[in-house]
Amino acid sequence: MKQIRRERERARTDRPDLDAVLDAAAVGTLATVLDGQPWVVPMLYARDGDRIILHGSTGAGALRHVAAGAPAAFCVTLLDGIVVADTLFDSSANYRSAVVRGHLTVIDPSDAAYALDLMSDALIPGRSSEVRPSTTKELSATLAMALPITPDGWTVKVRVGPPSPPDEAADSGGWAGVVPLRTVAGDPIPAPWVSADVDTPESVGRLVKGT
Amino acid sequence: MKQIRRERERARTDRPDLDAVLDAAAVGTLATVLDGQPWVVPMLYARDGDRIILHGSTGAGALRHVAAGAPAAFCVTLLDGIVVADTLFDSSANYRSAVVRGHLTVIDPSDAAYALDLMSDALIPGRSSEVRPSTTKELSATLAMALPITPDGWTVKVRVGPPSPPDEAADSGGWAGVVPLRTVAGDPIPAPWVSADVDTPESVGRLVKGT
Repeated sequence: MKQIRRERERARTDRPDLDAVLDAAAVGTLATVLDGQPWVVPMLYARDGDRIILHGSTGAGALRHVAAGAPAAFCVTLLDGIVVADTLFDSSANYRSAVVRGHLTVIDPSDAAYALDLMSDALIPGRSSEVRPSTTKELSATLAMALPITPDGWTVKVRVGPPSPPDEAADSGGWAGVVPLRTVAGDPIPAPWVSADVDTPESVGRLVKGT
Repeated sequence: MKQIRRERERARTDRPDLDAVLDAAAVGTLATVLDGQPWVVPMLYARDGDRIILHGSTGAGALRHVAAGAPAAFCVTLLDGIVVADTLFDSSANYRSAVVRGHLTVIDPSDAAYALDLMSDALIPGRSSEVRPSTTKELSATLAMALPITPDGWTVKVRVGPPSPPDEAADSGGWAGVVPLRTVAGDPIPAPWVSADVDTPESVGRLVKGT
């Protein structure tokens, strides 16, 4: 299986390429250094212009450490397809990935409601306008953080397209190509306490149609 | 949006729980520490009993660093559903995640062919028996690494089920539930040089049916 074939796998350097990758995913992996050791945690996130919004519990020790200014790297990966070549070596995957490096900051409590709305709307577009505003109690239990996107603080890599063409006669003749992968939403499952006559919200309907 | 609701989101401590998460995904995020900074890269992987097999190019500097014994953490996340609550605070996601911590080792070149077969079959089950064996040249261009799974070196977290029930009268009455997400494979796309009369391999057929 092939790790890198330069002609198909490329670093992208235009900022819109970064935004496109970040806006296409909902979960990423946050990494930092704790006592000299790598520390990672998956997190939901939202992009807000030139920053990534993350949030966790105010009770989480490691998150507090990160929030206090420790260096962080946030990695997002979308697996778009399985690349099937004539050889194991040239088999690979089509993907989009982004890494944003920087130092997290805690979002001021006065902006926490905005951050929470943004996080919700990234996951369920339009949802924030369908429910009541977050309460002070809810906001105080949320640790909202921001990772700034700086010009030199990110990398994007994308692989698209078919496998590399076979360069040996012995490899040719067999099938080669791509099995595309995509994420789809199934039928919404109401919670047990929801009456059967309650319609699903518009935001949920769009979510199911949009994937 | 809610970060953690203890009753629905649980650490799993049985080893089969770890294996189930690792075996369900194809890509993870490898983190290490370089010059005191967190460093992350998405990687394809395969579980081989009590170790995770990873591979990269022998030319990749940071991978060489990791392979040389630097501390590593490998994070796998599967997003299984969007949890839609009556409030933004209680909205969340269903997911499975695993983190394996340890020190990577380089796989002996004599085992590299085995590792490459394993990686391929993790991504495309059965593929290794359909193609010719990897050549010495191909194997020498592959840096195969192993991350051992030790009893204390991993954590698994899983969230399943509906949102937390509303605990305030003001929150009740609206729709709440889960939008399940899953990854599906589309029709295989032959590479441009593949004749129309070449059948797709059995492994690819199973891949499309199996997702």
